[in-house]
Amino acid sequence: MNIVQQQKCFGGRQIRYQHDSRTLNCSMQFSVFLPPQAEQGPVPAVYWLSGLTCTDENFSSKAGAQRVAAELGLALIIPDTSPRGEGVADDAEGAYDLGLGAGFYVNATQAPWSSHYRMYDYVLSELPALVESELPLNGKRAISGHSMGGHGALVLALRNPGRFVSVSAFAPISNPTDCPWGHKALSAYLGEDRAAWAEYDASLLLKAKGSSLPMLVDQGDADNFLAEQLKPEALQAAANESSAKLELRLQPGYDHSYYFIASFIEDHLRFHAEYLG
Amino acid sequence: MNIVQQQKCFGGRQIRYQHDSRTLNCSMQFSVFLPPQAEQGPVPAVYWLSGLTCTDENFSSKAGAQRVAAELGLALIIPDTSPRGEGVADDAEGAYDLGLGAGFYVNATQAPWSSHYRMYDYVLSELPALVESELPLNGKRAISGHSMGGHGALVLALRNPGRFVSVSAFAPISNPTDCPWGHKALSAYLGEDRAAWAEYDASLLLKAKGSSLPMLVDQGDADNFLAEQLKPEALQAAANESSAKLELRLQPGYDHSYYFIASFIEDHLRFHAEYLG
Repeated sequence: MNIVQQQKCFGGRQIRYQHDSRTLNCSMQFSVFLPPQAEQGPVPAVYWLSGLTCTDENFSSKAGAQRVAAELGLALIIPDTSPRGEGVADDAEGAYDLGLGAGFYVNATQAPWSSHYRMYDYVLSELPALVESELPLNGKRAISGHSMGGHGALVLALRNPGRFVSVSAFAPISNPTDCPWGHKALSAYLGEDRAAWAEYDASLLLKAKGSSLPMLVDQGDADNFLAEQLKPEALQAAANESSAKLELRLQPGYDHSYYFIASFIEDHLRFHAEYLG
Repeated sequence: MNIVQQQKCFGGRQIRYQHDSRTLNCSMQFSVFLPPQAEQGPVPAVYWLSGLTCTDENFSSKAGAQRVAAELGLALIIPDTSPRGEGVADDAEGAYDLGLGAGFYVNATQAPWSSHYRMYDYVLSELPALVESELPLNGKRAISGHSMGGHGALVLALRNPGRFVSVSAFAPISNPTDCPWGHKALSAYLGEDRAAWAEYDASLLLKAKGSSLPMLVDQGDADNFLAEQLKPEALQAAANESSAKLELRLQPGYDHSYYFIASFIEDHLRFHAEYLG
């Protein structure tokens, strides 16, 4: 992996890397924040999955997470939201919610997506193996994300017990088998087999399997996407049924933007730090 | 003034306004952060002047200033960096350091700039009068800025004793009569009369007039523009000669970016809060 850009930030280092991904079959960029504590020895990591249209830059520049990560001694690992580059399929009409910037953290099985769109495996396996071999990380991982990335964080954590010590999300797409964004993406990437979709639906996974993971979800009640796309009530119902440890907080007046994320990222990082030790 | 966008942030409100500026002779946008304390009564304000190529959005979304402003009860007033819109002159070659996004906080006297480029008067008079009549502000003002905006903040504060209780800057263009950015902008906007240039040079102003203002300046020592464009040593020399209260801090390893600003904006807001009462 090659350093594209590196900047000092809150006493630590904000670094953008490039590498050739075997899983995604293309060149990828991702960002990392290494806190000052990483100069002394390996630190735990919080993975952040971004939402539709984002790259690794949005969270890096807008969330203000480095301040708290520097205080708590947490690395931040921030992947892109889809494969990129020439030869990577995009939506024919350039829609913002399918193709580039909209990988939905699934392993696509349908043409033309299946040759590159394997963000599930990338975030679960290739990226952690890479950064843990190259950077001062101690192998302890938590995961969080926003909107499409909140969906990705919940699904990755629920399907892989033991991989992450805790999971959190901001305004996640909680029940993608039952919303327009989810229908569009899952049918394109996975075809019409609803059983395949269910493997990427946090509410269905939680209802079916339960979970002992600590889970924190923040949702703004002035979020334009709340009722039609996000459906946190489905996640809450699944948590109730399965006695999962979900804290779902409805934040009055907050919308879907990075101003909402910036306002509560400190709570999320402190939540994860408790379990990362 | 009309609300273009409004978002809850750290319990306060981040608002983007549009208004028709008489001073600039065009429609302008600017951003404001109102802390939660503004719901109870008028609060003091920190004016933020951004650098080359920025609009009001860069500081609003990248500096992380709202968290501390919400804690301290400070409003943030964030103007654009030049006049905008059809009919507003731009550099013929679209240079980033002249014309749109590069108003340099001067009152231009030369064609074609003089019909719109009056950012000095806009920030000094029209904008404060507007926001203080429309928003819960108590009329106490501090001013800060970055790079070209650090230059603007220092010049506005030094030329107008009593208007601002304190001034700070990140990597300001400290001596624009003696650097390439300054030569280009000042000769275009003001012509070749060097006496006119001197009215917009913080180091010359401080040397000539002195100041009793509290001044805080942060400068990264890994800033690519440090030696050729920024020249904080000229400001320090002028402060020493005039016994001004300048604290100039050289921050090791930091560059010219918003990661640098984000790392130290808390110090600047706490500095201003001390004088804003």
